[in-house]
Amino acid sequence: MFSDEYFMQLALQQAENAFDEEEIPVGAIVVCQNQIIAKGYNQTEKLKDVTAHAEMLALTAASQKLGAKYLKDCTLYVTLEPCVMCAGAIFWSQIGRIVWGASDEKRGFQKIQSKILHPKTQISFGILQEDCEEILKRFFARLRT
Amino acid sequence: MFSDEYFMQLALQQAENAFDEEEIPVGAIVVCQNQIIAKGYNQTEKLKDVTAHAEMLALTAASQKLGAKYLKDCTLYVTLEPCVMCAGAIFWSQIGRIVWGASDEKRGFQKIQSKILHPKTQISFGILQEDCEEILKRFFARLRT
Repeated sequence: MFSDEYFMQLALQQAENAFDEEEIPVGAIVVCQNQIIAKGYNQTEKLKDVTAHAEMLALTAASQKLGAKYLKDCTLYVTLEPCVMCAGAIFWSQIGRIVWGASDEKRGFQKIQSKILHPKTQISFGILQEDCEEILKRFFARLRT
Repeated sequence: MFSDEYFMQLALQQAENAFDEEEIPVGAIVVCQNQIIAKGYNQTEKLKDVTAHAEMLALTAASQKLGAKYLKDCTLYVTLEPCVMCAGAIFWSQIGRIVWGASDEKRGFQKIQSKILHPKTQISFGILQEDCEEILKRFFARLRT
């Protein structure tokens, strides 16, 4: 019963929720020891928030449920290959396993590499660089004392 | 007065808030027509949420303030080069410009490329692939009718 297909079917139900609300239909669930601890579906339109992808909402909900930042013993099921943002969040979560259904040839993290930022976004860096470095050094120095 | 250094100084004040709360000290602000419309500092420990980076909180707050998903005419000031997650969110926001202070040689999005996921995270894909593709096709077909 507790196959990858079983859990993906539940992720698809989440995607159906998004579909019904006229959101791009992607759904996700987080499973820990065969228990569903979190679920989410894309709500970028409803929340007017580009960060409200299914995976992001599910990861945040899973951490709230566990009371822990890291999800090492969990599996994320998601109907579509994560984008770079979600892949970055998945990295930080240290989640144990990720399973997706459809691949995303356009914005999936596996194909994206150099296309991480929007081509219209201008970049500047090095502003107050020393100050911005110093606060980090000061923080980690304090940690070591 | 409204120089990049001026706004970066305000982002640094946000980083100081994080520092004072024993969070890794990164701060961000979003500026639109020389007005600060949002600010944020890293709160991953306090919120037990790996997605609660300064940039993510500032982007979400900016969209709430504007009542719009996209931030085309805005500039994001952040004290540290964004990670891949934040760079992905910045992509989706279509923000007009990004300015950072310190570079992040370890997890900055410019250097990361193939290291997007955590090395311990296992990957599976293609589970219920056709169903997962079909719901997306159905959604976009509906959009076109």
